[in-house]
Amino acid sequence: MSLISELKPQDTVKGNYLCKYKQLLKNKNGKDYISVRLQDQSGSIDGKIWSIHLGIGAFEVNDVVEVEGEILVYQENLQFNINKITALTEDSYDLRDYIPHSAKDIQILEESLFKHIDSVENPFIKKLLEEVFYDEAIYKEFLVHSAAKSVHHAYISGLLEHSLTVTELGLKMCELYEGVQRDLVLAGCLLHDIGKLQELTAFPQNDYSDEGQLIGHLVLGSELIHDKAKTIPDFPLHLEQLLKHIVLAHHGEYEYASPKRPKCIEAMIVHLADNNDAKLKLLEEMLTSSPEKEGFIGFNKILNRNICKVNL
Amino acid sequence: MSLISELKPQDTVKGNYLCKYKQLLKNKNGKDYISVRLQDQSGSIDGKIWSIHLGIGAFEVNDVVEVEGEILVYQENLQFNINKITALTEDSYDLRDYIPHSAKDIQILEESLFKHIDSVENPFIKKLLEEVFYDEAIYKEFLVHSAAKSVHHAYISGLLEHSLTVTELGLKMCELYEGVQRDLVLAGCLLHDIGKLQELTAFPQNDYSDEGQLIGHLVLGSELIHDKAKTIPDFPLHLEQLLKHIVLAHHGEYEYASPKRPKCIEAMIVHLADNNDAKLKLLEEMLTSSPEKEGFIGFNKILNRNICKVNL
Amino acid sequence: MSLISELKPQDTVKGNYLCKYKQLLKNKNGKDYISVRLQDQSGSIDGKIWSIHLGIGAFEVNDVVEVEGEILVYQENLQFNINKITALTEDSYDLRDYIPHSAKDIQILEESLFKHIDSVENPFIKKLLEEVFYDEAIYKEFLVHSAAKSVHHAYISGLLEHSLTVTELGLKMCELYEGVQRDLVLAGCLLHDIGKLQELTAFPQNDYSDEGQLIGHLVLGSELIHDKAKTIPDFPLHLEQLLKHIVLAHHGEYEYASPKRPKCIEAMIVHLADNNDAKLKLLEEMLTSSPEKEGFIGFNKILNRNICKVNL
Amino acid sequence: MSLISELKPQDTVKGNYLCKYKQLLKNKNGKDYISVRLQDQSGSIDGKIWSIHLGIGAFEVNDVVEVEGEILVYQENLQFNINKITALTEDSYDLRDYIPHSAKDIQILEESLFKHIDSVENPFIKKLLEEVFYDEAIYKEFLVHSAAKSVHHAYISGLLEHSLTVTELGLKMCELYEGVQRDLVLAGCLLHDIGKLQELTAFPQNDYSDEGQLIGHLVLGSELIHDKAKTIPDFPLHLEQLLKHIVLAHHGEYEYASPKRPKCIEAMIVHLADNNDAKLKLLEEMLTSSPEKEGFIGFNKILNRNICKVNL
Amino acid sequence: MSLISELKPQDTVKGNYLCKYKQLLKNKNGKDYISVRLQDQSGSIDGKIWSIHLGIGAFEVNDVVEVEGEILVYQENLQFNINKITALTEDSYDLRDYIPHSAKDIQILEESLFKHIDSVENPFIKKLLEEVFYDEAIYKEFLVHSAAKSVHHAYISGLLEHSLTVTELGLKMCELYEGVQRDLVLAGCLLHDIGKLQELTAFPQNDYSDEGQLIGHLVLGSELIHDKAKTIPDFPLHLEQLLKHIVLAHHGEYEYASPKRPKCIEAMIVHLADNNDAKLKLLEEMLTSSPEKEGFIGFNKILNRNICKVNL
Amino acid sequence: MSLISELKPQDTVKGNYLCKYKQLLKNKNGKDYISVRLQDQSGSIDGKIWSIHLGIGAFEVNDVVEVEGEILVYQENLQFNINKITALTEDSYDLRDYIPHSAKDIQILEESLFKHIDSVENPFIKKLLEEVFYDEAIYKEFLVHSAAKSVHHAYISGLLEHSLTVTELGLKMCELYEGVQRDLVLAGCLLHDIGKLQELTAFPQNDYSDEGQLIGHLVLGSELIHDKAKTIPDFPLHLEQLLKHIVLAHHGEYEYASPKRPKCIEAMIVHLADNNDAKLKLLEEMLTSSPEKEGFIGFNKILNRNICKVNL
Repeated sequence: MSLISELKPQDTVKGNYLCKYKQLLKNKNGKDYISVRLQDQSGSIDGKIWSIHLGIGAFEVNDVVEVEGEILVYQENLQFNINKITALTEDSYDLRDYIPHSAKDIQILEESLFKHIDSVENPFIKKLLEEVFYDEAIYKEFLVHSAAKSVHHAYISGLLEHSLTVTELGLKMCELYEGVQRDLVLAGCLLHDIGKLQELTAFPQNDYSDEGQLIGHLVLGSELIHDKAKTIPDFPLHLEQLLKHIVLAHHGEYEYASPKRPKCIEAMIVHLADNNDAKLKLLEEMLTSSPEKEGFIGFNKILNRNICKVNL
Repeated sequence: MSLISELKPQDTVKGNYLCKYKQLLKNKNGKDYISVRLQDQSGSIDGKIWSIHLGIGAFEVNDVVEVEGEILVYQENLQFNINKITALTEDSYDLRDYIPHSAKDIQILEESLFKHIDSVENPFIKKLLEEVFYDEAIYKEFLVHSAAKSVHHAYISGLLEHSLTVTELGLKMCELYEGVQRDLVLAGCLLHDIGKLQELTAFPQNDYSDEGQLIGHLVLGSELIHDKAKTIPDFPLHLEQLLKHIVLAHHGEYEYASPKRPKCIEAMIVHLADNNDAKLKLLEEMLTSSPEKEGFIGFNKILNRNICKVNL
Repeated sequence: MSLISELKPQDTVKGNYLCKYKQLLKNKNGKDYISVRLQDQSGSIDGKIWSIHLGIGAFEVNDVVEVEGEILVYQENLQFNINKITALTEDSYDLRDYIPHSAKDIQILEESLFKHIDSVENPFIKKLLEEVFYDEAIYKEFLVHSAAKSVHHAYISGLLEHSLTVTELGLKMCELYEGVQRDLVLAGCLLHDIGKLQELTAFPQNDYSDEGQLIGHLVLGSELIHDKAKTIPDFPLHLEQLLKHIVLAHHGEYEYASPKRPKCIEAMIVHLADNNDAKLKLLEEMLTSSPEKEGFIGFNKILNRNICKVNL
Repeated sequence: MSLISELKPQDTVKGNYLCKYKQLLKNKNGKDYISVRLQDQSGSIDGKIWSIHLGIGAFEVNDVVEVEGEILVYQENLQFNINKITALTEDSYDLRDYIPHSAKDIQILEESLFKHIDSVENPFIKKLLEEVFYDEAIYKEFLVHSAAKSVHHAYISGLLEHSLTVTELGLKMCELYEGVQRDLVLAGCLLHDIGKLQELTAFPQNDYSDEGQLIGHLVLGSELIHDKAKTIPDFPLHLEQLLKHIVLAHHGEYEYASPKRPKCIEAMIVHLADNNDAKLKLLEEMLTSSPEKEGFIGFNKILNRNICKVNL
Repeated sequence: MSLISELKPQDTVKGNYLCKYKQLLKNKNGKDYISVRLQDQSGSIDGKIWSIHLGIGAFEVNDVVEVEGEILVYQENLQFNINKITALTEDSYDLRDYIPHSAKDIQILEESLFKHIDSVENPFIKKLLEEVFYDEAIYKEFLVHSAAKSVHHAYISGLLEHSLTVTELGLKMCELYEGVQRDLVLAGCLLHDIGKLQELTAFPQNDYSDEGQLIGHLVLGSELIHDKAKTIPDFPLHLEQLLKHIVLAHHGEYEYASPKRPKCIEAMIVHLADNNDAKLKLLEEMLTSSPEKEGFIGFNKILNRNICKVNL
Repeated sequence: MSLISELKPQDTVKGNYLCKYKQLLKNKNGKDYISVRLQDQSGSIDGKIWSIHLGIGAFEVNDVVEVEGEILVYQENLQFNINKITALTEDSYDLRDYIPHSAKDIQILEESLFKHIDSVENPFIKKLLEEVFYDEAIYKEFLVHSAAKSVHHAYISGLLEHSLTVTELGLKMCELYEGVQRDLVLAGCLLHDIGKLQELTAFPQNDYSDEGQLIGHLVLGSELIHDKAKTIPDFPLHLEQLLKHIVLAHHGEYEYASPKRPKCIEAMIVHLADNNDAKLKLLEEMLTSSPEKEGFIGFNKILNRNICKVNL
């Protein structure tokens, strides 16, 4: 079955995809047609059902559908001209097969996460991390959540992967400088984006929640720490403040919606590690998804520049 | 007894003032002298004790002292040349006599506050306001706290005065536009700076707390709403989110340390009312404290411009 | 007759609308067709006349036309597929029926305007306001002019409505602060946008004039004050300067094209009141025109954010 | 008699200078002393009269005084230790000898000005220039006014010199491009800063007037054109608008307090020519006043960088 | 033969043009069609070959083709509906006839260039200019290269024309100020954009090279000076540094990708002259290409404003 | 002998220090005195020689002097009241004892440097690194040079230490992402600041050279790569361009004086690693030099915020 990323103009295709968007429209001559967006792990494509006949079965957004048709180029983008479409029954597929996910081995990431928690020496910080990551409701979501709606890590287990890469970078920085509180950096790295569990809805939607739009993942993360710390007897107020500070300051500057800028070296490390991973993952995703071997592979809107792939 | 704002070069003065700063120094010839800063309701002045003799009694920062000496001009500022100084006993004065306070009648402000709370129709918003302002520990502080370390409303009851002026402005805006949720605006106006109770320490210090520097009054206020809402049975989650949004967004733009920008008209009103009062109180304080009748009265550093006083 | 705001896909429509745009084009096959834009009080819609036959009468831009046809969706927007179109004779309609106008009662606004002018105590300011608003040529236009080409108050009597709301807000601020010259604030509020009479052409065009593009409404307003003040014997030069300052400074900052920033509290009040109304009217227009009861109702390009409608 | 720019530490000096500042102060021991600022064409120096005795005659700010004393270094600046001081009678000196002035030959500048006016072909533009520069009250001031309070051209005839250099540059640009209206550029260059006659008071003060602070030289210049154009029969409105546009737009960008940005090539030329002269005169003044032959000669605050003098 | 700039809707056209772009596409019904872009000295136009038949010969990008067809309007732009197309043989045309070029007389520009070089008095600067412009490989390219990919001077000999206009402006500034090193300014003007020979590929591509994207013309120009200076015995290091500084600083500010800002008056002159020509050439190109006689002729995206053409 | 960092008010001191500044001045009474600045590894202090007598020997800037005197507080800073001063002979001390230096073991840093070079697989990159670091003149300076005039790493071997920490961080990032060219990152990290050898003069001056001010270390580093690459047979042009790009882009954004922004992931890594070390070293220097155990330890001007030291 063809992956969407491999479709080419003039291909004749039969395959199963997740329907992410569907709208009934009318053309100039008043004839009905349907516009859809199809998705699998490898990408997505717009499709048109120009003629509505027997081969066009009932289906809804977020159904997985079996589709037949041809690939065209329309206004410089590929378009799927659909001749047949049928919804599959929910028990006949695994939704996760149709959503992009982390390329890393999740089990290794999980082991790494718990080894990090075990390595914490400060008992309050350790207890707090356990309260969060041993909380089944939280952990179940943390394992699969994305770290973004789009841009980078916008896939299943993106949050887990991002949190652990940030931790790797943060711990490396702890080694290189004097007087850094390693436990605080580690907790900051693991928790800095925990508010994304509330800011973004679960897959397949993976979109901003009301709460996300009104409060945001920085303050939601800070609030989670506040609530969890309350449940731990004698949790030091100053430690709660420092952890909340690290989360609130991790975007680094006011203009990136941080209500505080990093004021201790631990908060600065978490911010820098997060920023490093954001920029580098963005580039890695662009480089690995490009079919070019080397040279300028296209314009990146986020970075606002052409990107060059190097191959010595 | 002379108010500091009325001291003039060459005055011989005897008076009581609050000592805000004290340091033992040495002059070029190795002789000890003491540098102090004295304050009353009307302002503050630097002082020097050039010669340490019997008339110079023991005193500490935040003591009220009886002082005798003369007023000089040194590098374009007034300076108090102190000949005698004695600490008063704590029961012989009221500290609040030596700290600037609101020019408004506090009792009228209090009545106004409770009338506003009574006017709320939504039972959950009303209950939340009562949980905050009927909480004795909070209310006692709210009555006397400043709204700033300096800049504007940096005096006793400044927070109370500011919150109520913002409410006046916010309610006026509610009248002028369709479809505004008045109860939400009112609660937002009264609560928007409530986190300043934690951000700034009480008088006579009135300085940024650690918590203030690490978390900030926007998130502290949002957290207070979160904690109080939890104590109210069935408090609607969406309402809690909206109230927190209003507090988190009241600085209006990211660069002023708001983690969210106003997304509903109620949050926009609270932001605008707060901004109006900040700018206008700043100007009012400058105009009323200037001895000039009209014309350009000096440069305002916050606004970065010369200010003109008008008298038709 | 159907209001444009109420048209839906697949409607068959017959109605009268103002033609705002008309162009003869050719399709791929070299066949002529006509593209138009139709408007009424409630909004506007693009239309196509695909086939030019007897039912397509002569008509020009700014004619009111009787139209028959069907409503389609084209590239996510509604489109009027026109089968018949005829221009109405000029005496058979009132142009103002086809242009959006203020939702407020104009007579009440007028009464309010003159009560404000009557309340002025300073004889020179009062005389100047009378010279402006009792000038028949000015007043006739002031009653119907918009306050903007688009964005907010872009409708008949928008300037009148905006000027009076700004006045309401400005006068409220006068009450709340010491030492504000009320007469100056009032005149500033009423006159701050008077230059828009020259900056924007009258309806139905309501577009930037050459003068508007080269000089702008701030300087045009300042010039009007200059010219009117000259006609009043003994008009104090300083008062003329202050009034011009208020008008020139009402955008608040250089980057919003103000050649001066507010330097007296009166100019600051006019600027803040204007800014309040601009932001809040923009939101009010979006909230009242949205069919949604509550929740996020769409992205606002001017404010660059999603907007949330609240309904407790 | 020693020029102030030539004074050195330990010099014993007797000379005549203009007193720009005078204040009676008290030292630590309560003894009176006087602080002054003295000026001549070459620069200015602070002075102190430590002991007030018979040799210290009566004198006021803006008097020319005969002074005797010695030159010291105090906190890295020269200071004049005054032993004797006497005011000269007003008829015994020419105030202009004590104020810096243009290094150019004024008569040549004047001839150049009138040759430029004569060269104008458009009769309305020519008439307008004559109304301005043949107006005796304006011309008398134009000949001596500075073009700035400080920064560059802050000397007698600075405005004349600046206006003519801008004209030279503007006319050169007219030669190099197609379709430029030379008369409009010429008038724009000569008139662009004419509002400085009102913005800055005459020498010896040369300081911002109230009008300057409230209205500014861009709008004041535009207003002068407006008033003069009215006196010329049939002056084309469009031409008045273009001339006002050029003056209002000559700072080039909103953030430099231009209410309009240049929209025609003629306005762009005037803006660029003005900007060129501002930057280059600033550097020329710094280079010619530096005693160094070459190399880095110091930090320029306006340009915010070290400046290098080149000598091949 | 019709120039592209003169094509109008409904024209039937037969002519020769350069093919700049070609792509085989499929329409909705799966039928192949070809999209092209055609260009001549006067401009460019999109074209479609809807039907691929015998009249459609083989042709490639950068071929000159003979084309027949009709001109339509599609989505507000002209479009060439192509019926016949044939590639011309390479020896039957001069590629330069199909690319826009400078309107100036190239021979006069060349004479002017060498007269400028001859006028240099400093022997090292003169030698360096000769090393560059007498280098046949460089000079051959310099004569025809553009000064930009688009925006302004994006035509054959654009670099030559731009360099000489900048020189004219720079030399005029040298006349007007004291103490400017004319030879350095002249060399700076002639060399400031020399790195564009490497930054942009030759015509007909005229696009950014890899080197251009990775290094940029400022550093490439500085490097050329470095390499050429090395070949001149005893070339003073300080002079090399100054020339490189002028080239590196000619964009004036960091945000325009200058790694240094102008620190000597000579660098400032080159920067200002370059900036003047960039802005004015942009406007001249817009004014001369507009068919309107006067008035607002359209929106300029680079300057972000409407442009007004003046005709007194 | 007392380290400057350990001096306290009222100490009587005898010690050897490097004289960094010396000026002969006159006090109010015309008496000569000398102002100096003394420095050792631990910091620096201002000093005054109020009375010039036999104990005051001849000495110059950059001499090491033996000094006797007392420590006072003057305007909140320590001041050294010097009674005796004598220059030591040059052979009686090691200048490096009086200049701050890296706290790291230099031999370990050197070993690390060469191990990194050995690890390079690409023969051209390896050869280029050897050409630079095996060049005796370069290497001798590289070992001792600072990485800054002030701010961070402004000490002996600061450049070496900084380059290696950046390398550590860069190599960690190489491990974490797919498809990164490790050799290029490694070379970029080691070479990114190599231009500082020319930008800053050697110790004891450690100040900006003319070349540094006119060209800057980014372009100077790029030029060094250019010159060294030329000496290596068949060095690939594209590789030279990439290495120069990495150096030119390492400040990340135009406003930080990078003429190019990072366009390949390798350049991005070098930029991020450099930025990480700059921010974290700055904080580490502040934390380790503060005598406080924890809490807010003062305002950092570069970061423009109060800094908090954490101690769990």
